[in-house]
Amino acid sequence: MAIALLTDFGTQDGFVGVMKGVILSINPGVQIVDISHEVQPFNVLEGALLLKAHYRYFPAGTIFVAVVDPGVGSERKPIALKTGDRFFVGPDNGIFDLIVREFERPPTAVVLENEKLQLPRVNDTFHGRDIFAPSAGYLSRGVPLEEFGSKVEYVQRLNFPGLVREGNKLRGQIVHFDRFGNAVTNIPCGNYPYGEFRGKRLKVVLFFQSGERGSLNLVCGSFGFMEIFVPMGDAREEFGLELGEEVIVWEV
Amino acid sequence: MAIALLTDFGTQDGFVGVMKGVILSINPGVQIVDISHEVQPFNVLEGALLLKAHYRYFPAGTIFVAVVDPGVGSERKPIALKTGDRFFVGPDNGIFDLIVREFERPPTAVVLENEKLQLPRVNDTFHGRDIFAPSAGYLSRGVPLEEFGSKVEYVQRLNFPGLVREGNKLRGQIVHFDRFGNAVTNIPCGNYPYGEFRGKRLKVVLFFQSGERGSLNLVCGSFGFMEIFVPMGDAREEFGLELGEEVIVWEV
Amino acid sequence: MAIALLTDFGTQDGFVGVMKGVILSINPGVQIVDISHEVQPFNVLEGALLLKAHYRYFPAGTIFVAVVDPGVGSERKPIALKTGDRFFVGPDNGIFDLIVREFERPPTAVVLENEKLQLPRVNDTFHGRDIFAPSAGYLSRGVPLEEFGSKVEYVQRLNFPGLVREGNKLRGQIVHFDRFGNAVTNIPCGNYPYGEFRGKRLKVVLFFQSGERGSLNLVCGSFGFMEIFVPMGDAREEFGLELGEEVIVWEV
Repeated sequence: MAIALLTDFGTQDGFVGVMKGVILSINPGVQIVDISHEVQPFNVLEGALLLKAHYRYFPAGTIFVAVVDPGVGSERKPIALKTGDRFFVGPDNGIFDLIVREFERPPTAVVLENEKLQLPRVNDTFHGRDIFAPSAGYLSRGVPLEEFGSKVEYVQRLNFPGLVREGNKLRGQIVHFDRFGNAVTNIPCGNYPYGEFRGKRLKVVLFFQSGERGSLNLVCGSFGFMEIFVPMGDAREEFGLELGEEVIVWEV
Repeated sequence: MAIALLTDFGTQDGFVGVMKGVILSINPGVQIVDISHEVQPFNVLEGALLLKAHYRYFPAGTIFVAVVDPGVGSERKPIALKTGDRFFVGPDNGIFDLIVREFERPPTAVVLENEKLQLPRVNDTFHGRDIFAPSAGYLSRGVPLEEFGSKVEYVQRLNFPGLVREGNKLRGQIVHFDRFGNAVTNIPCGNYPYGEFRGKRLKVVLFFQSGERGSLNLVCGSFGFMEIFVPMGDAREEFGLELGEEVIVWEV
Repeated sequence: MAIALLTDFGTQDGFVGVMKGVILSINPGVQIVDISHEVQPFNVLEGALLLKAHYRYFPAGTIFVAVVDPGVGSERKPIALKTGDRFFVGPDNGIFDLIVREFERPPTAVVLENEKLQLPRVNDTFHGRDIFAPSAGYLSRGVPLEEFGSKVEYVQRLNFPGLVREGNKLRGQIVHFDRFGNAVTNIPCGNYPYGEFRGKRLKVVLFFQSGERGSLNLVCGSFGFMEIFVPMGDAREEFGLELGEEVIVWEV
């Protein structure tokens, strides 16, 4: 059994380490994996995107704890849900929406309200440690979802930018920059003969080194979306790319 | 059994990874958890603060290795100690003092001088790898403290800023900024009706979103100390906060 | 059995986390350790240097996955090799050369071409996830090297700067800066009475605190090479040190 963590906590303050301490206090043998803790503070959309990109590569039964949670302590609900064969634990603020949308059947979801499955004194600035980590710990020990609290019928939607189709044109936008400065779009990988950006045609290639040097190119990237990149360069920096800029691809 | 690591080594050079390699060479099955490796270089006080904030959330028996060690190789002693039901391994430079102070009984502490429980050739620039990691590995295998070396009667104190009480006023200061720009003080969480900072009154709230937008507020934060914050903002940056600035709370 | 990871992926995008997800899907119980993911993007030499510095401290049988791979998807070959009693998995671009050179016998190396030991749909932008992680997973389960593909006779060399010997002078250079601003050279640790840098004599000391304050000093550092440092300071920043600058030591 594995627990995978995604937060905007950074790694400097020990906030992630202490969550692991709590988990191991409940289930000493469990595998814990970090996905990322450098989601931009409070950026729920970025957290949702990373989760969607990577979750399917983890073992069936994996419990994902996703904490990008500007509303911690407010009326937003702490939840756990199961969809497909994986579990997700975190705030009900849309962070799980891109996963939930992938499945036809709605998820089984519950509010985390059983205080016996949380730390004794919950601090309303740190549900990651006091509610989400212990919930993941108990889930990994096989405690069934229903014991955590009452069912939730509706899981929050995320305001994720959609694609616009015009004939054989697909209009999307830049939604994330990765560590290399590649611009991840919201256009799913596909067989596109070419693309367009800032009024100029973009070559579509199969791997980075086959792109044109010094130019912007398109490739099916690591997130499962089309990416704009410069071979051996940092596209974001060299071309001043911005979140939200429009990217177009032509379908065959 | 778990080993938790706290250092100022950063994560770029593999210094933490190699410590884990050493530990796993001695005890292949042990759980290793990172607390933080981004303590400001040489900042023993910050390391001590993170350790104090988080250690109690780890399982009984956890071995904490804390290496913020500007004096590595000099006459400062490498030690291991047990207090409460947890172990601590690192340099005797005050980094464990905030933990030791929490217990009435003095800790059992020893100097790490048994070379059979260290790497064969000790490099005096990297005791983390050559002395502390193997000591933690052997401790996790159940080697008793006394085998590591002779007893230490006195563990180094830390120059941690104290609180000043004046009637029902408690004067503290900012001792740390977290990743979100929240200013952690040395004032323990408590039931304070309000606070004061730079001559202005501060609202005390229970969670971040209930703070006044655009203003400084006080909350009981994740370290167990009162924190100054701005809802959905970066207090340090927006208000130019500095380490050491005075913060006052009124007690009921 | 342990798997150790070294990449230039950073930790913000989940690229390392997803590799771990793939590994745990194949071998749920394996220990996974991070060496570093902050190798400068595309800097194969830096990756090779970190690997060489640290690999010997990991348990026999450890599988090292090293992915600094600007040529991903191009004609450069994905390989796995065994040398000494450890395994190495990654692109054949020179990243393993400093290890291979340490052994008289050439390594046993194979091309990773057996698609049954890779993810079903290989994305040619992310062999870390689709080829190298599953290969490491299967290796850790005991699948023999020969099942991964045909033998490679020649492993790529790295353009690593050599030392020049002139009488009892050894001329090397700065090849890496660590997190503290210490300048790691390509001069192996040894018993050198003194050194020279920018025409000035450097003191050689045994540990950091015995260096001259405010001055550059030499010490045998954590990488097994001589390092230039300033006690309690950042040598790179304070003295404007640059990669490639010449450093000289005198042999006894």
